Amino acid sequence: MSTQVKITDTTLRDAHQSLWATRMRTEDMLPIVGKLDEAGYHSMEVWGGATFDVCMRYLKEDPWERLRLLNKYIRKTPLQMLLRAQNVVGYKHYPDDVVRKFVEKAAENGIDIFRIFDALNDVRNMKTALEAVKESGAHAQATVVYTVSPVHTIDHYVETATTLENMGADSICIKDMAGLLKPYRAYELVTAFKEALDIPIQVHSHYIGGLAISTYLKAIEAGADVVDTATASLAFGSSQPPVETVTAILSDTEYDTKLELEHLFDIDRYFEQVRRNRGFERGVTRITDMQTFSHQVPGGMISNLVSQLEQQDSLDRIHDVLKEIPKVRKELGYPPLVTPTSQIVGTQAVFNVLLGERYKVIPDEVKSYIKGYYGKPPAEIDPKIREKAVGDEKIITCRPADLLDPMLDDIKDEVEHYVEKEEDYISYALFPQVGLKFLKERKQEKDIFGENEEGVVKEEEEMNFKEIKE
Amino acid sequence: MSTQVKITDTTLRDAHQSLWATRMRTEDMLPIVGKLDEAGYHSMEVWGGATFDVCMRYLKEDPWERLRLLNKYIRKTPLQMLLRAQNVVGYKHYPDDVVRKFVEKAAENGIDIFRIFDALNDVRNMKTALEAVKESGAHAQATVVYTVSPVHTIDHYVETATTLENMGADSICIKDMAGLLKPYRAYELVTAFKEALDIPIQVHSHYIGGLAISTYLKAIEAGADVVDTATASLAFGSSQPPVETVTAILSDTEYDTKLELEHLFDIDRYFEQVRRNRGFERGVTRITDMQTFSHQVPGGMISNLVSQLEQQDSLDRIHDVLKEIPKVRKELGYPPLVTPTSQIVGTQAVFNVLLGERYKVIPDEVKSYIKGYYGKPPAEIDPKIREKAVGDEKIITCRPADLLDPMLDDIKDEVEHYVEKEEDYISYALFPQVGLKFLKERKQEKDIFGENEEGVVKEEEEMNFKEIKE
Ligand SMILES: [Co+2]
Ligand SMILES: [Co+2]
Repeated sequence: MSTQVKITDTTLRDAHQSLWATRMRTEDMLPIVGKLDEAGYHSMEVWGGATFDVCMRYLKEDPWERLRLLNKYIRKTPLQMLLRAQNVVGYKHYPDDVVRKFVEKAAENGIDIFRIFDALNDVRNMKTALEAVKESGAHAQATVVYTVSPVHTIDHYVETATTLENMGADSICIKDMAGLLKPYRAYELVTAFKEALDIPIQVHSHYIGGLAISTYLKAIEAGADVVDTATASLAFGSSQPPVETVTAILSDTEYDTKLELEHLFDIDRYFEQVRRNRGFERGVTRITDMQTFSHQVPGGMISNLVSQLEQQDSLDRIHDVLKEIPKVRKELGYPPLVTPTSQIVGTQAVFNVLLGERYKVIPDEVKSYIKGYYGKPPAEIDPKIREKAVGDEKIITCRPADLLDPMLDDIKDEVEHYVEKEEDYISYALFPQVGLKFLKERKQEKDIFGENEEGVVKEEEEMNFKEIKE
Repeated sequence: MSTQVKITDTTLRDAHQSLWATRMRTEDMLPIVGKLDEAGYHSMEVWGGATFDVCMRYLKEDPWERLRLLNKYIRKTPLQMLLRAQNVVGYKHYPDDVVRKFVEKAAENGIDIFRIFDALNDVRNMKTALEAVKESGAHAQATVVYTVSPVHTIDHYVETATTLENMGADSICIKDMAGLLKPYRAYELVTAFKEALDIPIQVHSHYIGGLAISTYLKAIEAGADVVDTATASLAFGSSQPPVETVTAILSDTEYDTKLELEHLFDIDRYFEQVRRNRGFERGVTRITDMQTFSHQVPGGMISNLVSQLEQQDSLDRIHDVLKEIPKVRKELGYPPLVTPTSQIVGTQAVFNVLLGERYKVIPDEVKSYIKGYYGKPPAEIDPKIREKAVGDEKIITCRPADLLDPMLDDIKDEVEHYVEKEEDYISYALFPQVGLKFLKERKQEKDIFGENEEGVVKEEEEMNFKEIKE
């Protein structure tokens, strides 16, 4: 039995989303994708997550066009994306027809592996996405989001993962977005998964406080099949661990990744130049990242809380807020602290502290969460808090998306004038304002510069491609 | 059997030597030493290495005075120093009387644990230091310097460590100054040491390319008793791994350090302020650090080579030099690449590449090394190179310091006028120029400001001490 460990490279998606605010451009990617393709990765995560939104909103790039180009020049390595289940690549639940059409088109344009996750680990929220991926013929990787709480036991995770396997998942990802997964816990968890499941196990950790490399090591000893890394200059800090270190640790052991260090160094030298040219900082570990070890509040969430408190001239209350968060989290049924639940818990905790009376004010998003519109919380919500928040209002117990009407047929008229391809309708359906603005501006530009403009772009791309091959 | 792992904190010595060019001042230390003392560390490395030299040369501080103050305010935690064996705290071999007097006075002023190392692992170079420490009643920790070569096998290390145990060492330190020790190799090495030796094993790694945390984890699984860490804001990069992460990893396992995270965070918040106030950078891992994995050349050595080549307008030859280094190292008997052998190998490699003919020029220090004046190389020196370098000149096979006459009696007259305490003679013996300049300037200052000046300093110290206790 080969125990060679496989590597998913996240440099083109999660790494720059974590460290560079998702600002890597397609033109930054193209000169190096040939080298990346030759590295021998199991897969490359290149799309999804925040990249779709940021492409249109800030980079004035068509996310579909990026995917087509990557798929054109990455010929050997499977392309992977992060799919937020019913949230697709946005921040709310979309109707099933949008989820299905998105997956169909993403697969058609080159995505080979879809990593599907839901913030609450509510498998109902992953159902449509999973089905759609299976229908597309692509690999459906289902995710369990790792967190620490009395209900998030090993048994709980095995149960969730088994359900996902039975729903058709081709592999399971343990997603440790907050860098909370400790090495010996990872060992236990992966051991339990390997015993209970027949499909491969992948581990996705963020470096944050410095656990991740050791966590991978113990996960690998327990049988993890694939781990996620990034190139050194986009690793560490809030990003993934560096591929070079993981490769060095495993070289000449039964787990050897078979990646070549010199090849990886060439890749990193390129990205180090991009980093410097663009003025982005390296990933580092700060004291706030370390504090995660004691209160389990992710570093990114602390930064948000600090901003919120500064706006209220109340930064001195940060320690009270950090103490309040575990209480609120417990009362709300121990949601993992990841978008959007981190905002839900964080905002409520800030209100509770600043107003001097707990739950005196309850924001709408907290009420929606309590009413079940985000899915089923991991544990029961405190009945007293529920009563206070929503009184006699109806709590939904169905899959939230069951309440959403199909939307694709209805929006056709609204954007028909700006659409060039079927995918454009999906961009608009997901982000009506940002998508429409993007499509309009694209059309304006074409109207001014004519079709030539596209011709010029194509030529540049070919040039870039030649550079890659040298 | 308790397997609780003990922690040596290097923040006040190795960490700032590695990241802040040894520029932490005593005044930066005093406000926090009370908290450090309460942390529950096995020991605190606070003295030795480059700190002695830098105190006098750049900070205009008396290193002995620093030690006395630290010893005054650190009451529970054993104080540790790095002793460069026959090089004491300098860069060349000193006569035995200097080594003995230095150790006697260091112990008298508060050092409880002496970590003794020699760059070549030549136990003869450690003999006098070991004896002196034993005589002083302090703990003598002997060191094996870790490196990678065909002769540095596990057996070789076990043999060296056994010899050191038989010479009276109270514990053994595995010193991985270049961040080369991989986790599974550490596991093998510590396992072999625990089987062969009866004394405790301590592991000292530098983070560099990111191995160290995982290396500690596997070393600990193999039975390592103590590991070296630094506070987060002085960890990572060329420094030690962070204590917070190691503590988090081991908490709730059989290896639990029993350190309290909140207490460690308080300490780190203090040092993070010092770091910001003084404008020092965090420890980070760069591509040059990663390259260590393929050619074993330490990152710091690469930086030196780059400067050397830049001065010769030949930076384009760096890759040739990196390829030349392993050859030169082999020909010179596989010395570990650490001061001063890293300069010896590096300089010769640069000459070999730039002059277009290997060993066309051989610098004096390389000749000295070949003649045995640094000690016995780990393997035989290539006879052809030896012939070319020193021809028929005599090779010494004795302990180099056997050829050095005692010096303390002879220097008394030279500095008597400036000396306040016996320790000042040692400072001068170790660093004649720097030491004399320091002693002279101190006297000048006192002559101008009178004895009051000392009174003022004392008062400030007392004030600092009160702050600590809050
Ligand atoms: Co991630
Ligand atoms: Co060191």
